[in-house]
Amino acid sequence: VNLLLLEPGELQPDGRARLADGRATHLRTVLKVAPGHQLRAGVLDGPLGVATVESNEGDAVDLRCAFEPAAPPAPRVDLLLALPRPKVMRRLWAQLAALGVGRVVLTNAARVERHYFDTHVLTPACYRPLLVEGLQQARDTRLPRVTVHRQFRILVEDELDGLVARGVRLVAHPGAGPRPAEALAGGRAARVLLAIGPEGGWNDFELRLLHERGFGAVGIGARTLRSDTACVALLALVHDALRTCD
Amino acid sequence: VNLLLLEPGELQPDGRARLADGRATHLRTVLKVAPGHQLRAGVLDGPLGVATVESNEGDAVDLRCAFEPAAPPAPRVDLLLALPRPKVMRRLWAQLAALGVGRVVLTNAARVERHYFDTHVLTPACYRPLLVEGLQQARDTRLPRVTVHRQFRILVEDELDGLVARGVRLVAHPGAGPRPAEALAGGRAARVLLAIGPEGGWNDFELRLLHERGFGAVGIGARTLRSDTACVALLALVHDALRTCD
Repeated sequence: VNLLLLEPGELQPDGRARLADGRATHLRTVLKVAPGHQLRAGVLDGPLGVATVESNEGDAVDLRCAFEPAAPPAPRVDLLLALPRPKVMRRLWAQLAALGVGRVVLTNAARVERHYFDTHVLTPACYRPLLVEGLQQARDTRLPRVTVHRQFRILVEDELDGLVARGVRLVAHPGAGPRPAEALAGGRAARVLLAIGPEGGWNDFELRLLHERGFGAVGIGARTLRSDTACVALLALVHDALRTCD
Repeated sequence: VNLLLLEPGELQPDGRARLADGRATHLRTVLKVAPGHQLRAGVLDGPLGVATVESNEGDAVDLRCAFEPAAPPAPRVDLLLALPRPKVMRRLWAQLAALGVGRVVLTNAARVERHYFDTHVLTPACYRPLLVEGLQQARDTRLPRVTVHRQFRILVEDELDGLVARGVRLVAHPGAGPRPAEALAGGRAARVLLAIGPEGGWNDFELRLLHERGFGAVGIGARTLRSDTACVALLALVHDALRTCD
């Protein structure tokens, strides 16, 4: 683990925390911590800091934490994603959190199969631990917000403006459009909302509706990628382009 | 399937081919092809083209293919990768082929566990079908070449120059180095060899040896990524940078 993440409720007002779950087991058996051992820690949606082991007797590990005054900034990219197959979606959660996504908006589309929505992969009990795993990997505390939408048109026409903060809107479509760096060049974009379609692509109606709602096309070349590969590739390119805008 | 891939030996001199395996089943039951139906086809390491269904009686499907005069160009990026956990490596094969990699050079490193090399994930029987799956996804015919090396120093000092064509050499390390686009700016690089370390990073000896052998550092920001996420992100960034060099 690159970062030990604590829930806000686990922390005493004086910065102490007692762990007695899998994290404690990991600290004792893998990291073999002793009193005085220091490790990177963070509070979910809160600041990063350092945890010092005070004692590790019995099953519990007692920590005293010192945190930075403020939480790290939230990721500047939000994702509007046509729901992929459950197996692919399951693999994506930790990777999305690791790459940095403020909000994950999962949507139906013409080429999404309805039964994908019935999977337990869309329950917080399944995806929250995977998101936390991704944050620990990337040393971030900002948990992506997740919403699931079964009606594409209602989502895009009525709900999207309220869900995501104003910013540049991009829609990825195989082959078409400028590179993300070109689409964002010179704009000093504060935030980006990136839309990624289903395996078969968005259909014409969906593309038109997205364009009407301000989404500009981006492409990453001629190769058609699986949803999870496309998400990781495009998020890397958009984050990279945003870094050069600063 | 975005592309039907044939082995060179399956093709008659007149462009006919008879399929009787899983691909035939897919054509008959999923695509429900009838005589006259046309689909994108390709020959492994050969040209792209079009296959026309001549008959689909019984278990077999007979095709007549017409191919372009030349094979598509080979991907311009090679990968030197410290062997990740077998589970992660298994997930990577199709994604590497889909993103486009000329050669995959898998290596040991100080932070790679020895038993990773004993996995069946490193046998052609396991990885070749996964590479073909990735090529079909991305509509490419160029099968990545794979070699496995248990001795990092011998690989880098004695073997690497013979394995990969001359080109720009980049080594990714968390946090350090310019962005791939900066590292490749203005160079008109013909080929790139990208080195990606193990989860815990390269150690100092390995980094020094790579630098001595011409690898320049690249980074993708402060976030530490899992091997598979890092590979997809970095390959996307390097391919994107190469496109702008053209």
